[in-house]
Parts: sequence; C-alpha cells; structure tokens
Amino acid sequence: MTYRAPVEEFRFIFNHVADIGRVTATDRFADATADVTDAILTEAGKLCEDKLAPLQRTGDQHPARLENGKVRTTPGFAEAYAAIAEGGWVSIAASPDFGGMGLPMTVTTAVNEMMSGACLSLQLNPLMTQGQIEALEHHASDAIKALYLPKLVTGEWCGTMNLTEPQAGSDVGALTSRAVPNGDGTYAITGQKIYISWGDNDFSANVCHLVLARLPDGKPGTKGISLFLVPKLIPDATGNPGVANSLKVVSLEHKMGLHGSPTCVMQYEGATGWLIGKEHDGMAAMFTMMNNARLGVGCQGIGVAEAATQHALAYAADRRQGRTPVGEGRGPILDHADVRRMLLTMKADTFAARSIALACAVAIDMTTATGDADCKARAALLTPIAKAFGTDVGISVADMGVQVHGGMGFVEETGAAQFCRDVRVTAIYEGTNGIQSMDLVGRKMMDGGEAAFRLLDEIEAHAETARAIHPVMAEKVWQATESLREAVEWLVSQADMTTRFAGSVPFLRAFARVLGAHYHLKAALAEGGEGPRVKLARFYVNRLLPEHQALLVQAMAGADDLYAMTAAELCA
Amino acid sequence: MTYRAPVEEFRFIFNHVADIGRVTATDRFADATADVTDAILTEAGKLCEDKLAPLQRTGDQHPARLENGKVRTTPGFAEAYAAIAEGGWVSIAASPDFGGMGLPMTVTTAVNEMMSGACLSLQLNPLMTQGQIEALEHHASDAIKALYLPKLVTGEWCGTMNLTEPQAGSDVGALTSRAVPNGDGTYAITGQKIYISWGDNDFSANVCHLVLARLPDGKPGTKGISLFLVPKLIPDATGNPGVANSLKVVSLEHKMGLHGSPTCVMQYEGATGWLIGKEHDGMAAMFTMMNNARLGVGCQGIGVAEAATQHALAYAADRRQGRTPVGEGRGPILDHADVRRMLLTMKADTFAARSIALACAVAIDMTTATGDADCKARAALLTPIAKAFGTDVGISVADMGVQVHGGMGFVEETGAAQFCRDVRVTAIYEGTNGIQSMDLVGRKMMDGGEAAFRLLDEIEAHAETARAIHPVMAEKVWQATESLREAVEWLVSQADMTTRFAGSVPFLRAFARVLGAHYHLKAALAEGGEGPRVKLARFYVNRLLPEHQALLVQAMAGADDLYAMTAAELCA
Repeated sequence: MTYRAPVEEFRFIFNHVADIGRVTATDRFADATADVTDAILTEAGKLCEDKLAPLQRTGDQHPARLENGKVRTTPGFAEAYAAIAEGGWVSIAASPDFGGMGLPMTVTTAVNEMMSGACLSLQLNPLMTQGQIEALEHHASDAIKALYLPKLVTGEWCGTMNLTEPQAGSDVGALTSRAVPNGDGTYAITGQKIYISWGDNDFSANVCHLVLARLPDGKPGTKGISLFLVPKLIPDATGNPGVANSLKVVSLEHKMGLHGSPTCVMQYEGATGWLIGKEHDGMAAMFTMMNNARLGVGCQGIGVAEAATQHALAYAADRRQGRTPVGEGRGPILDHADVRRMLLTMKADTFAARSIALACAVAIDMTTATGDADCKARAALLTPIAKAFGTDVGISVADMGVQVHGGMGFVEETGAAQFCRDVRVTAIYEGTNGIQSMDLVGRKMMDGGEAAFRLLDEIEAHAETARAIHPVMAEKVWQATESLREAVEWLVSQADMTTRFAGSVPFLRAFARVLGAHYHLKAALAEGGEGPRVKLARFYVNRLLPEHQALLVQAMAGADDLYAMTAAELCA
Repeated sequence: MTYRAPVEEFRFIFNHVADIGRVTATDRFADATADVTDAILTEAGKLCEDKLAPLQRTGDQHPARLENGKVRTTPGFAEAYAAIAEGGWVSIAASPDFGGMGLPMTVTTAVNEMMSGACLSLQLNPLMTQGQIEALEHHASDAIKALYLPKLVTGEWCGTMNLTEPQAGSDVGALTSRAVPNGDGTYAITGQKIYISWGDNDFSANVCHLVLARLPDGKPGTKGISLFLVPKLIPDATGNPGVANSLKVVSLEHKMGLHGSPTCVMQYEGATGWLIGKEHDGMAAMFTMMNNARLGVGCQGIGVAEAATQHALAYAADRRQGRTPVGEGRGPILDHADVRRMLLTMKADTFAARSIALACAVAIDMTTATGDADCKARAALLTPIAKAFGTDVGISVADMGVQVHGGMGFVEETGAAQFCRDVRVTAIYEGTNGIQSMDLVGRKMMDGGEAAFRLLDEIEAHAETARAIHPVMAEKVWQATESLREAVEWLVSQADMTTRFAGSVPFLRAFARVLGAHYHLKAALAEGGEGPRVKLARFYVNRLLPEHQALLVQAMAGADDLYAMTAAELCA
C-alpha cells in the first residue's frame, strides 16, 4: 500500500480552521512554533509513508499469533515499532519531566491520524501507551511516575488498558476482578479481562497493564472500582524488568479485521499490582485515559478515511470504463458523475471529521494551558462527537472506497476491503458510538446545554461574517445551526433520559453535520477566491448538510415509537 | 448458525401487500393456490433451517479451493446442493415443459430469499442456474432447449454467467473475447473471463457457461456482442456429459467474504460453443438473464438482512448490560433505547425491502401471465430499486447487527461479522448499485416518467383510503409521494443525462424510502387495530421516511458541484 501523509492539509487546518495560534500563544505551549510543528509533521509523515504503510497488508496477511503463551507479532512490526519509539512519536504530548516533548495534543492528534492511515493495527499499540502515560501523569504516585514514565515515554515499555470482562462491557460497573492488599503496599489482582488490545508483544521490554478491579470493601457498581498498574515483568531494584508477574495471555480473538493487533484474553492470578489514584476511585483515573483514547480512536477512523480516499482516487484516476461526460469521453471513471459523488463525499467528510477532531484537540490543549472552564467544557462536548463521527466517517468512507473499486473492491489484494474490515471496530471499542451519543445528550448536557449553545453562537457569528463572501453557504450554515439549537433546547428540557437516549445517535450525527459545515465554511473563507476548498465546501453544504433535518426529526422523536412493541413482538 | 424461515411473513406480504391474488387469478398461474404456495414455503423453509443454515459458517471457514485445476467445494455443500435440487428449488419458476414447476416468480423470490439468509455462498449457485434457464427458455433453439433444460431444471447440471473481463466490467461493450465459426454450426470461443461465480464445482455432472464474445464481424461496443453456451463437458450423442471442452479455471479470487462461493478466473481456449439467440444480439439475451438475477441479488441482500436481524435480536434478548428503562432495570440490552432504535430499523427496513422485491416479482408474473405493457413497465421500474435497495439494506442491517453485538460483533465466532463480509458484494455484482440507479433515471425514465407516475398515483390513492384509520401516517406518506413526484418531474425534464446521473443514487434511495412507507402503510391497514405491524409502520414513517427529503435535495442538485473541481484538484 502507498500512503501520502497529508502534511499540507494539517498545516492548513491548524492555522485556518482549528486556530492552533491560540494554543501556541500560551506560555505552556510557546515552544510549539510553526517550525517545530512543521518539522514534526514532516518527519512523522515520512515514517508513515516509508515504514508503516508497507506493513498495512502484512499485518492482515500475517496476523499476530499466540505460541506457547507468547504473542508473536507480524513480521516487520518490531522494526517499525522501534522507529516509532525512536522518533519520539509515542510521547509528543507527554511531559518533558519524564522525557516527553511536551507539545500540544493537537500535534499528537495529527501524528496519530497519520500513523492510523498508514498502518492501523500497529498504531493501536502506541495509542494505548499514550493513554497510560496520561493516566499515570495525572494519578500515579511520584515513585510510580519515576519508575514507569521514562520507560513508557521512550517506548521501551508498552501500556495497555484492561476494563472489559465477559459480563462487563459497556457496563463496566459489573466487573468482578478482585484486588486484595498484600500488606506491603501492593495488591494481588485476580480475574479475567477480555478484548485487551496489544495485551502482549515480542518487541517491548515490558508490558504495563492498567487494570480495573474491586477491593474487598469496594461497593458494587462503578463507585467501588479501583485502578492498578500491573506489569508483565516486575521491575527489580534498578527499575529494570525482573521476575514475571502472575498473569498470562490465554488466547487471541479471531477478528473481522485489524489482524496485526493481538486482541488478548488476559488472566490475572494474584498478580502484583500497584494502586493508581485513590481506592475506589478507579473510574476517574480510567476516564483520563479513556478521553484521550476516545479522541485517538476518532482519529483512527479519520486516518483510515484519508487512506481509503487516496486509494480510491488513485484507482478511479487510472481505471477506464465507458464513455465519460468530460475529456472527449475517454476519461477515467473518476469522471463519471456517481463516482465523483462518492469521491467528493469521501473527501468532504474526511475534512469535516478531521476538523472536528483537531478542534477538540485544541480545546484540550487550551484546557491544559489555561485551566479555563469553558475550554474544558468545549473539549468534553467535542470528544464524543470526534470519536463517533470520526469512526462513522472511517467506516462509511472505507465502504465507499470499496464501491469505487467495483469488483476489485471485494477482492482482498487491492486492500480496499481491508480498510473496511479494520476500521469497523473503531465504532465499538473505547465506548461504542451509542455510548458516545448517550454521553453527549446526558453527561455533556448536564450544564443545561451551555457549552453547546456557546459553540452554536460562535458558528452563527462566523456565518454572519461569511455572508459577505459566500451568502448562500453562510445562510444554509446559519439555518442549520438554528435548527440544531432548537434540538438542543428540546433535549435539555427532557428530564427523562430515555427520551434523550431515544434520539441520541441521530442527534450526535446532526451536530457533526453542522460542525462540519462550519469548518468547511471557515476553510472556504480562509482560502479566498474560488479554489478547491470553496468547491468542496459547496459540495458539503449543498449535498451533505441537508441530512441534518431528518436526523433532527429522529433526534426529537421521543421514545414512544421505540417502546411501543413488547419484547416478544420485537423478537417475533 | 440458526435461521428461522419467515414463512408467516411471506404469507402476509403475498396476500396483503404484494397482492399475489392478482397473479393466481390468471390462467397462467391458476395452479399456484394458497395451499401450493404454503406447502412450498414450508418445505423450502425447512430445508433452509435444517440443511443450509448449518453450512453458513462452514463455507466461511472452509472456503472453496482450487486443486490441480479442479474446484473443491466446502464440506457439506455437495449434500446440501443435492437437497436443493431434489426439492425442485432450482426451478420453481421454470417451464413445466422441461420439468419445472411453472410457478410464479413471486414464490421463487421468497424461496431465494430464504436460501440466501440461510447460506448465501451456496445459494448463489442455483441463482445463476435459474438465470440461465430463463435465458435459454427465451432465446435458445429447440434443440438446445431439449438437450440442456431438463438437466438444468433438475439441478443435475449448473449454469454460470460469463460477462466480465479485466478491462470490461460495468462497460461490457469493451470485451475482447472472440468467437469464430467452426463451420459446423458451432463456434470456437477464446478469451479470459473474470469474477465468474461458481465457475466450477465438484457436485454437478456438468457446468454450462453462458459466455459473451464477439464474432469476427461484430462491431465494437455492445451491439457487436453475441451469446454462447459453452459446456464444461460437451454432451455426447445421448445427451450425457462427454469430452472435456477447451476451458479451465485459472484461479480463484481471495475475497472479503462469500468464501464458500468459488469466484473463478476462466480461460477459454477455442472452446466449443453454441450460439444463443441471434448473432450480435447477445446483450438482449443476457439482459433476460440479468434482470432475473438482479431481483435475485436484491433478495440476497434481504435474506442476509433477515438472518442478521434474527441473530441480533437473539443476542440482544439474552445479553444483559446496565440498567434498562423497563423491566425493573434488569432487562436485556434489547430494552436500551438505542439498541431498540437499531433493531427496529433493521426490522422496518427488511420489511420495506422485501415488500419492494415481492411487488417487483408480482409485476414480473403479471407480465408473464398477461403480456400487459403496464405490468412490464412496472417490473422494469422496480427491478433496479429492488436490487439496489435490497442490497443496501442487507449491508446496513448486517452492519447494525455487528453494532448490536458490541465487541462480540467484531469477533468472527458470533457470525455477525460474516454477514457483513458476505453481503458486501451484492451491491457490486450484477451491475453495481450505481449502475442500477443510472438504469432507473435513464432507461427506466425513457417513458417520460409514465410508469413512475402511475405507481405514485396508486400510492397516493391508497394513502387517501388510509386516512380514515391512520390519518397521521397517511398524510406523511402522501406528502412524501408528492415530493417524489416533483423529483420525477424534474428528472424527466433534464435532457442532459449527466445531470440525471449526478443525483441518481440518492433518487433511487428516496424512491425506495417512499415505496417502503407505502407498503408499511398497506400492512398496517391490513392488520387492523394496534398490532405490531402498525407499530413498525409508525416507526418507519416517523423515523426513516424523513430521510427522503435530504435525498431528494441531492437528487436534484445537478452536476455542477460534482464537476467544479478538476481531476487534479480532486486528486490533490
């Protein structure tokens, strides 16, 4: 597979859409100058093109295997992982106190997206470590930080997240893994965890598991859960990997895609763990990790969307079938109207999803830099949208990529099908997209919609500015924002959460549709003239934005239709 | 996998939605009494449940292989195929003159759907034979009919379709396979054909290929193409398989799904063939076969949708996660609002797609029975919609099935992922869904929209009748039909085909959305009271029908947005 790192596109969105200038104007991120950012994007992009993209198909064809309890990774992954670690790409945003670059999440987000587009199954590994680094930075003791962070930051050790158990998926509170104090400050962890991405590998010196478990006096539900750091090899007195801990990989899942990433069933049998954060307060620490990971997973979807779009464009620019309406009838299929419709949808949605993700990253960075409550609320609001819309776009764009290829799309050797198979899980893990939408209409609207209204005000203000140059587009964006505002007003007035949840997925999507239109309009205005960004914005606003109307009808349809049938009628 | 044949559902749609009574009232189909139809649905359903469904996973895990030039099929397929043939399910609609049952296409359509839901990869085999039987019935000489049809009708021999070549996919006219007269009434066929579904097997006594090729005096393009019957084994004087013909399977494709179905690259090296139909008139004969196959492929999508829905319902009725808003909070995930939204969408869309397919089949049967031009136009209009919407629904429903399963959906052993992988090709083969939509707005609107308007008149007349019982639903259906009417008027007024094609896919989908609403309303009215069909209809009309608005905006958006960018800008 070939992959072209979209460095120019990131540069444009950074400067003209997501306003990275606000971030770099803060003391905290003053070092993140345009030169630094450019150098990172260029270098990381080169790694993605040269080292990661060639492994995309290899991971699919030579999946990770379990041999005598040890995970054997795809040939070439060890070397590529070493290059990722060497470049410092695991820890762009990590604190310089422990060797990280201390750069904005915005830059990490772009690099994560590029790595995902080049080789999703391998990229999932450093993404997990990034989340662990952030959780430890915020919640671990100084001793744990000093011991673990330098190794994680360099990529010498890898990190994982252990939440799910067979009976506890979306309902994390149902977990039964136990932690018993050993009396020496450590804990004995026992239980089975499933769906552990990169639960083991054969290229890092250690694997550090963050494991949710319940102490003997832990209450039932999420309020009785604590978080533990459980290393595969227990560090010795010098901090180097020592004796093996009492944990093992029981089996690997046979999955639809993402074959290069070993998805492990992990068994902990009195394994030694260290408490992270306070007792019974594991969910708070886990959410630090999860929020980071949710944005990261959104970018996985966007990365695949970018790669699938490049791939489909290359095919469509080469393949010739039938008379085309331009180019004297001898053009490639790219010139057929419906193929153009698909390709433009792919491009326009990728831009929209990417802009939302980067706007979310900027809000996270502003929160880090200033502690401002509005920035924090903005980041919290955008995270579920970035995750769900980013992954939905990844799935739909990869699917359109298959369709552009025709019969060749269904045949594995083109790689179009692999994008579909790989990216499908991103709508499921780190909280299904249904869970994201419940988070949006529930927790994220606990402020009475204040954060949402503030964002809608900004969109309308910008649309007013844009009227002078793009009156038609500006009016459509303004109208759509008004419709969305009414839906938010309706939502926050619903005390019954089931009524909100009944329309939460269409609501999230409608919100993303409007946000996407706003960012397209920003890009069009910033580009000026009648360039390709204006044309793409017009396509989006004319063709894709109108979807928000039916989505908002669904968002406000209430729960009655959903519960009219009995379970027996539904299953009949 | 388990599969429950939806016999009751077919019975209801036959009688109350698709009006099979019109068909059985004709002389031609007077034998297709309710008793006969019931017996067939029940018997075929039993075969699907008992013999085919257990092979669904086997086909995926033990794909067809090529060994020394011979195709080895999945273990169990030979026995199951024998049971299909024995039941007469290959030839329900075939003429009794050659051993067929001579029953309506409507019945075939239902049986094909059930077989697809139970085991798609195997069902594709008899579907191809059905198409060949129909092509030979219409276009072959009496000698060919007498020799081949009895064997194909019993399933002793199988049939295939050979259209595609590497450079000739959607553009069939670009094919280069050659046919040279041998001087004895036969022809020597030479060329390579790709994507030949079930191009060979190890369970039928012969495989008969219908091959498109060009005679020496054939013009370039589709008007110079002829159709030939090219058997794997040339029948001897007694009509039994004799010497091997000069053709071979070169390789099998490695596909995203449908692994049980061998997709062959076929090489013809001066193979002996017999002309079917007239010289240079191969496309006409091929279209007989293709139209049948297009409806059949639509039903493949619907079959998978039915199976995936049953599968997801069973999982959702069993799996417990978190507090549910009903059942004292201890209900299964089926009681979560967003899971209900997905399950109801799956059920409602499956019903809509199935009703469209069966209405199309009824129109085909009425054409066969009466030769009526209006019936013929109705069948022609509904075929691309049945194909594209049926397969789109198959894909989206299977995708929602994965989402309902959460993490288990991405893991292969549940079978949810296989539905997705298998059904994906149905939007591509037998004319991509893009091609179907071009057919709808192009060829099928050559009558100035007459056939479409006649259908819309019927829908509105029915909505008027329904107002007394379901005023809200009836009004929504009526309004949506008016909007669709305006779009048809706009479309037929566009002389520039590119303008039509620019919105053809959204137009087809909007048409299907309105048709689906009409059939839901018919079902609700026929059921009476406030039963599950009324509830499902309300869900569809309130939640899914509104999509037609944005789709019609896209349908009438014109081509300017699509061609604003240069190819270079698009690929940048």
